[in-house]
Amino acid sequence: MNGLERLSLNQITVRGWSLERAVRGCAEAGVPAIGLWRDKVAETGLERSASLVRAAGLKVSSLCRGGFLTATEPDARQRALEDNRQAVREAATLGTDTLVLVCGGLPEGGRDLPGARRAVADALAELAPYAAESGVRLAIEPLHPMFCADRAVVSTLSQALDLAEPFPVDWVGVVVDSYHLWWDPELERQLARAGDRIASYQVCDWTLPVPEGALLGRGHVGDGCVDFTALTRAVARAGYDGPVEVEIFNERVWATPGEETLATLAERHRRLVAPYLDGA
Amino acid sequence: MNGLERLSLNQITVRGWSLERAVRGCAEAGVPAIGLWRDKVAETGLERSASLVRAAGLKVSSLCRGGFLTATEPDARQRALEDNRQAVREAATLGTDTLVLVCGGLPEGGRDLPGARRAVADALAELAPYAAESGVRLAIEPLHPMFCADRAVVSTLSQALDLAEPFPVDWVGVVVDSYHLWWDPELERQLARAGDRIASYQVCDWTLPVPEGALLGRGHVGDGCVDFTALTRAVARAGYDGPVEVEIFNERVWATPGEETLATLAERHRRLVAPYLDGA
Repeated sequence: MNGLERLSLNQITVRGWSLERAVRGCAEAGVPAIGLWRDKVAETGLERSASLVRAAGLKVSSLCRGGFLTATEPDARQRALEDNRQAVREAATLGTDTLVLVCGGLPEGGRDLPGARRAVADALAELAPYAAESGVRLAIEPLHPMFCADRAVVSTLSQALDLAEPFPVDWVGVVVDSYHLWWDPELERQLARAGDRIASYQVCDWTLPVPEGALLGRGHVGDGCVDFTALTRAVARAGYDGPVEVEIFNERVWATPGEETLATLAERHRRLVAPYLDGA
Repeated sequence: MNGLERLSLNQITVRGWSLERAVRGCAEAGVPAIGLWRDKVAETGLERSASLVRAAGLKVSSLCRGGFLTATEPDARQRALEDNRQAVREAATLGTDTLVLVCGGLPEGGRDLPGARRAVADALAELAPYAAESGVRLAIEPLHPMFCADRAVVSTLSQALDLAEPFPVDWVGVVVDSYHLWWDPELERQLARAGDRIASYQVCDWTLPVPEGALLGRGHVGDGCVDFTALTRAVARAGYDGPVEVEIFNERVWATPGEETLATLAERHRRLVAPYLDGA
């Protein structure tokens, strides 16, 4: 027992590392799971990536990411669906049951937000049975509302659950990411509602100022204003007992040696998250 | 009839102008109302500001802003309450019935978001009767969730309505600001719920990228991705028949000569907002 049994490294957090180096980093740091990104997997090769994580005895907590399902133009829509089917096959090969979906923003120049949201629902209906056949669950990730225009028209846990609930629970789940959801007055209630729909718990902290472009402002757990005690307890009480994946987009973190980043996130996990994973 | 009967200039939009210059600008452009800021009023003097707008025949659509009610330390809390009572008196002197409240972010270094939200509710209970005695309605402004940490723990219209509803409708209302609320999947439903609680309709557009600090990224109506047709109709159908206040925080807009800014917002109002103010 090293206190890291529930920890997973999302590999974007050590962006400078290859997949092979990240796998080795996890093994060395005693982190038992890793969340993979498709571009990094492609760099290393799909089969080779799969055998590297297997050989290291790592669990693959998720694959990031499918999604971008809001195109209305028929060709673009077909390309997006095919790309998502490809992502499902990659997830299956890598041995993970969780494909994270970042659903996509408004189509270029578009203003029809309800239409974009319907497009996501329609795409889920096409993709979920396909994914389920491969034993892969689609995990809808609500992104912070500041990404609504350009990254994800799914902005709240409530909305993600509305999208997921028409499907069997093991076909479509949701991602609970502290950065995206911490502000939501509905969060505690929606977590209780989510229950077994929670496919992934991702953590990083809200730090200020929001940087230009909004993407790279996330901090290590404990560096910002998210109450990880309350959030972790609520996630645990909802019944979630899977990995806690640390996913940080931040130029400063990316400029830090990977070993140091891993040491920091392990320490934060032990102190600020792990003690509350029993819900008490 | 110049098509601007419902338009109001929030004076932050012409930030380089004094209050006197902004009042003259409105008169020259045929804009019948203005939203004032306390710092600009202080610069000009309260009584003089009041007589300038009266002499120009302008309606004062709102005073920005009270709020910042999340301090928990007793002295800081008392100072905030007194500052808000002062703002109420200023609003009454200026002849507006609407004091916009930006409720405040987390207390410095704090992580107790539910606690900060309770502090807002408690402060409203102290301030609302005082304001009502002066004929001033407190208008809770939900701010975009990206401001939750540092500016407003009130992030959605639903939450603002929950805070407002314990009070008589003419004591506490809400501000509907396109920039802050456009992304909300609940928006249409909450607007219908809001009804007579809508104390102000503020407009500007969501443009990308989000700038560093997140504050100054707002664009002229029509420059971004907000569907002003749908939003304006929904606000009108809720029963709102007051001024449409254009409030833009943007360095480029601020660097533009005020006359030009006024001409732009008048054109956008006529074309993109006014036609839908009857709800049809």
